[in-house]
Amino acid sequence: MEVFAVPDLPEIRAGDDVAALVEERVDLRADDVVCVASTVVSKAEGRTVNLESVTAGERARALAGRLASITGESKDPRFAQVVLDESNALLLDAPFLLAETRFGHVTVNAGIDRSNVPEADLLLLPEDPTASAAALSTALGVPAIVTDTCGRPFRHGQRGVAIGWAGMPASRDWRGETDREGRELDVTVEAVVDELAAAANLVSGEGDGGTPVVVIRGFEFGDHGGNDLLFRAREDDLVRQALERWEFPG
Amino acid sequence: MEVFAVPDLPEIRAGDDVAALVEERVDLRADDVVCVASTVVSKAEGRTVNLESVTAGERARALAGRLASITGESKDPRFAQVVLDESNALLLDAPFLLAETRFGHVTVNAGIDRSNVPEADLLLLPEDPTASAAALSTALGVPAIVTDTCGRPFRHGQRGVAIGWAGMPASRDWRGETDREGRELDVTVEAVVDELAAAANLVSGEGDGGTPVVVIRGFEFGDHGGNDLLFRAREDDLVRQALERWEFPG
Repeated sequence: MEVFAVPDLPEIRAGDDVAALVEERVDLRADDVVCVASTVVSKAEGRTVNLESVTAGERARALAGRLASITGESKDPRFAQVVLDESNALLLDAPFLLAETRFGHVTVNAGIDRSNVPEADLLLLPEDPTASAAALSTALGVPAIVTDTCGRPFRHGQRGVAIGWAGMPASRDWRGETDREGRELDVTVEAVVDELAAAANLVSGEGDGGTPVVVIRGFEFGDHGGNDLLFRAREDDLVRQALERWEFPG
Repeated sequence: MEVFAVPDLPEIRAGDDVAALVEERVDLRADDVVCVASTVVSKAEGRTVNLESVTAGERARALAGRLASITGESKDPRFAQVVLDESNALLLDAPFLLAETRFGHVTVNAGIDRSNVPEADLLLLPEDPTASAAALSTALGVPAIVTDTCGRPFRHGQRGVAIGWAGMPASRDWRGETDREGRELDVTVEAVVDELAAAANLVSGEGDGGTPVVVIRGFEFGDHGGNDLLFRAREDDLVRQALERWEFPG
């Protein structure tokens, strides 16, 4: 399996055809998966917000006030408003906003990016990353993954994850398969789109010289079942249930 | 960057020299990282347990009894005892045992594997995976990562993670670096050993025909700071704090 960045992509602007820009630079093969950083998809889709266009409601003002009192730094209630607008629910409201986005991804500040947006204050995640991936996959003729980077419980640091995918299942399902000695495997479902996103992130870089589109060539899904469950529903997520009953003691 | 499995490894047994078996099969290069599945490291280190050698204490019997009443399946108190023996703490005791291993990794049943162990009931994780990685890295002359697969909150499915590493930092530290427009990056610390483990897991497979050692060739760490923080301490982990105050309602 080979993992390489698409070279010489220009800075992406609203309305750009990302698939065409990729096709001009790489001869894609049938065994490729194309991973596109969500920042690029969002820029092409014009998912920018300027704070002067936002009016913070009561809840956003309360959230920002509490965050400011905890962190000792001023917090813009309009930013909190945009996080609320992009979210189904907040899993934590202090000491930071941990949100479930409208499409089911759990991440700090609903994944809203305050860096890397030349012409606006904020860059939102794509509105429907799986639809974005489907459009890319159709145009390119290979599976496509829209990736994000985010942190996680239990472990420090961020890693690449998939937030949208098309042309392949999210997971490889080993259930019912056995090991060399015929014992049933402990590993049952492998979230391959997340692993592909993580692999892509190793070569994509950030910021200056960033290469936000990565091709993974020669990944073999293999002869396994597949499924498209990736984001846990509340009832399948004990951590989320525990967080709901918890209050940051600050 | 290239990712490939080491071919034709035999079934590993206690006392085997994994580094020598790898070197016989691959001409390693200076830009390689070798990822070894924890199952292989544990087998070579003889980390097997037979349940007949285990006596369950009072706490293990209570844990197994409660799990049995929740799941409706009988649970062996001796298995719970081994999980306790391998753990610093339980983050959840129902509806399954979510444990912090002695070396800081949070995973179900302390990562104890009931499949893929031909000659024993249980395969434990390596006792000190970073020491295991250091021995591999020294013998092979390249960075080495000991990998595990485990689930996570918020997302379904398992993915590869690093549980030990040597010869390279755990994370790439982008703090203070800026984007094309000079804005500070939102992504600050990237857990590259986890991303490498995830990439390795895409080609390593499980069970029959599994290829538990993977070489990643041409990964560039780049000109960034690095650090070796990977496992969150309790005080840095809000999810863990929330779980401590929560009881499974079953």
